[in-house]
Amino acid sequence: MPTDTPRPLRADAARNAEKIVRAAREVYAQLGPEAPLDEVARRAGVGIATLFRRFPDKAALLRAVLDQQFTEDVLPAIDRGLADEDPRRGLTEVIEAALTSAAEEYHVLTAARSAGVFSAETGARFFDALDPLVARGQRAGVIRPDLVPDDVRRIMSMLVSVLWTMDPAEAGWRRYVTLVLDGLDPTAATPLRHPAPPLLRRPQP
Amino acid sequence: MPTDTPRPLRADAARNAEKIVRAAREVYAQLGPEAPLDEVARRAGVGIATLFRRFPDKAALLRAVLDQQFTEDVLPAIDRGLADEDPRRGLTEVIEAALTSAAEEYHVLTAARSAGVFSAETGARFFDALDPLVARGQRAGVIRPDLVPDDVRRIMSMLVSVLWTMDPAEAGWRRYVTLVLDGLDPTAATPLRHPAPPLLRRPQP
Repeated sequence: MPTDTPRPLRADAARNAEKIVRAAREVYAQLGPEAPLDEVARRAGVGIATLFRRFPDKAALLRAVLDQQFTEDVLPAIDRGLADEDPRRGLTEVIEAALTSAAEEYHVLTAARSAGVFSAETGARFFDALDPLVARGQRAGVIRPDLVPDDVRRIMSMLVSVLWTMDPAEAGWRRYVTLVLDGLDPTAATPLRHPAPPLLRRPQP
Repeated sequence: MPTDTPRPLRADAARNAEKIVRAAREVYAQLGPEAPLDEVARRAGVGIATLFRRFPDKAALLRAVLDQQFTEDVLPAIDRGLADEDPRRGLTEVIEAALTSAAEEYHVLTAARSAGVFSAETGARFFDALDPLVARGQRAGVIRPDLVPDDVRRIMSMLVSVLWTMDPAEAGWRRYVTLVLDGLDPTAATPLRHPAPPLLRRPQP
């Protein structure tokens, strides 16, 4: 019997995983980074055993949450940004979408950091998509030519760090996106005398 | 007898405290944020009991270290910055001095964060000194007029956060000082549509 019905079972499993991840986003948003996993299971309508079968630990669940968040909130913005005929506006749209997502799922990010989940893969997907937008802006002469990919990574980290100095539900972080992007404008660009040092992915103390 | 010689005793105590703080800076720089306090005492040439009499816990010692670091490394730069006739250069000098100090005493900062020491007082002394430099630049038309003091605090935090993405002994962080300060230039300034939100001093996760 099991050999006859692998597809429905796999589809069920995938549906459960999707429900669990969506419930986790809700529960973290409402209860904060310490939200208990049994509340996630309850909200998803599955048993805790099912949750742990799909996500052996909290880190695995958080990785899936970050991944869903990226796919649903950020990827469409990247497509819109690439389609925007104004390269600077396109880049701004993508950066703002990523930070909107980070601000909304702030408790997930906090939980992910505590669990040591940095989601290098999601980061790589994001920056692989962002780099061509930066390069297009540089070719169009609206982004300073001396900006390199590691700078873009650091700038995003700086902007995310600002969320921790305010109520992330407020829109005030957009102020710093504007300030920092103005620093990428070639008209005000001071020559950069130092090369970008290798990017270390050290967790902040 | 004790009532006759309070001054020499107090002077001794102050000398010991100064030696301990200086030894702590050396030991943290060499051994990292987990450096043991008995090594600090040994290097200072005092017993561990003397160290604990003067600094009842690690947090108290770290607060004194941050204070000495600020007084020796940053305060003179503030005087130089205020004396510089070019307001933008003066501001840059002070920001670079603060970050040079943070980069050099990186392990102290790491230890301070772990110990929950944020040294709000030292921060307040720094920003009280920095604000007039920003205001002078704004009056001279070389710093964007819509920058407010809380922006300056956030910008400094962003720049310090960059140190954790590189070997802080390298000069590469200066690149981000330039990038960010270019964003303060009025010639490239995009209007800031959002007010600066209240500054929360939440520890980063």
